Amino acid sequence: MKISFVGAGNVAWHLAQAFESAGPIISEVYSRDPQHARQLVGLLYDTAIQPDLNFSESEAEVLLIAASDDALEGIMQRIVLPPGVILATVSGSHALADLQHLVEVYSDVPVRTGVLYPLQTFTKGASMDYTQIPFCIEATEEETEEALFKLAESVSPHVQLADTEERRALHIAAVFACNFTNQLFSIAHDLLKEEQLSFELLKPLIRETTHKALQSADPATVQTGPARRSDWATTNRHLNYLQEHHSDWAAMYRLLTESIRERHFEEG
Amino acid sequence: MKISFVGAGNVAWHLAQAFESAGPIISEVYSRDPQHARQLVGLLYDTAIQPDLNFSESEAEVLLIAASDDALEGIMQRIVLPPGVILATVSGSHALADLQHLVEVYSDVPVRTGVLYPLQTFTKGASMDYTQIPFCIEATEEETEEALFKLAESVSPHVQLADTEERRALHIAAVFACNFTNQLFSIAHDLLKEEQLSFELLKPLIRETTHKALQSADPATVQTGPARRSDWATTNRHLNYLQEHHSDWAAMYRLLTESIRERHFEEG
Repeated sequence: MKISFVGAGNVAWHLAQAFESAGPIISEVYSRDPQHARQLVGLLYDTAIQPDLNFSESEAEVLLIAASDDALEGIMQRIVLPPGVILATVSGSHALADLQHLVEVYSDVPVRTGVLYPLQTFTKGASMDYTQIPFCIEATEEETEEALFKLAESVSPHVQLADTEERRALHIAAVFACNFTNQLFSIAHDLLKEEQLSFELLKPLIRETTHKALQSADPATVQTGPARRSDWATTNRHLNYLQEHHSDWAAMYRLLTESIRERHFEEG
Repeated sequence: MKISFVGAGNVAWHLAQAFESAGPIISEVYSRDPQHARQLVGLLYDTAIQPDLNFSESEAEVLLIAASDDALEGIMQRIVLPPGVILATVSGSHALADLQHLVEVYSDVPVRTGVLYPLQTFTKGASMDYTQIPFCIEATEEETEEALFKLAESVSPHVQLADTEERRALHIAAVFACNFTNQLFSIAHDLLKEEQLSFELLKPLIRETTHKALQSADPATVQTGPARRSDWATTNRHLNYLQEHHSDWAAMYRLLTESIRERHFEEG
């Protein structure tokens, strides 16, 4: 199978290498920033830099759009597709119906549409175990669905179908569990830095917290801390301190404390 | 060294066993709930259940208060202390000066005060590596400080002095990095459950996110997600969905997205 990429950011950087190692050939990579395309192509075996969005001569059977959602409509306005290609986004949040609509509006040739969503966080340059990535597949036709399923399965055993609503829930959940979690780690880092304390001190705690959550079927069962044990003397002391020094973090503290309180209210 | 515990909750459950394995003898355990004291004493070698807060006959050199901060003043009103004992809390948030003040108000005999704060999350029954716990020590006198330092060092090599302000920063940071993080995991779990999706799907992502944060000196450097890449089409779609279904989670989404945006604004 031959695939090409539109986009050479974090997701494309990893997926292109993961697919190539698993068998599929990466034909072309296009990026708005030619240097990004050059960097990625340099890591692949025999891939051409695609200079523009004219893919009419491409031999790719699957064209993966790994660009930010904001960029999708702009790409669809300009892209020239080879007839019959499978055009798939790697987006967690974009509805398949919207992609299909954009194709109907902008493409001169009939193409098939789908989504191949890897539920993972990617950072260029970091090594990772691709066999651990859950992939969610959706397509407008069964044949397309099967082709994307097979492509994902070449990399990982964790492939499942997920429709647009399910994928949206997964993406929002991933933002909470991953992006927001990391922002909380970052705030914790900054709080310590103000007292010239090292983030290293918190690492055993973060390791243990995550370990317990990952061992559980529902992280609510392993919730700890002042809000969980209704220790309002402590939460109020924390809030007073934050209110004086970081009113934005105080608002966050209040909201999350309230959320824990409500979730565990009936358990006492 | 002989130590006794006031409280038999999550922290006492672990610290008593950790200290006993390391050498110190646990003389007595008191708990408001006698069953909790019985449970803990059953796991220790030769420890008495202390039926009330009259410790006047205790041979303990260190009395550790491992109770919720709300309960501290009530305990201090009723406790009878042996002269010269080191009275220490395991609290991250209580000021040493406040403990000293409560002693001056309520105790008939002179005692020494301090704090031995283990920066870790404890759940009864879960096994853990005690040598990985960072301990923070503070005391009103150097001799007391040394005694508590030595006690903590019997368990873990990660012991350091931290004054009340530093400990407060550590505790608030721990609430963000641990308790709030777990609440975000819990919300992610609930979002998936509404679509009959398993929390298992998110576990590789959580594992990778934490791994990257723990490898970094500052988690801000490994931040990913729609807010980090200024993908406002996606954040708005998420917010619209949450606003309709869970307005409390929408408020949290907004605040954390804004926090990421501000933190990374200058980096573009």
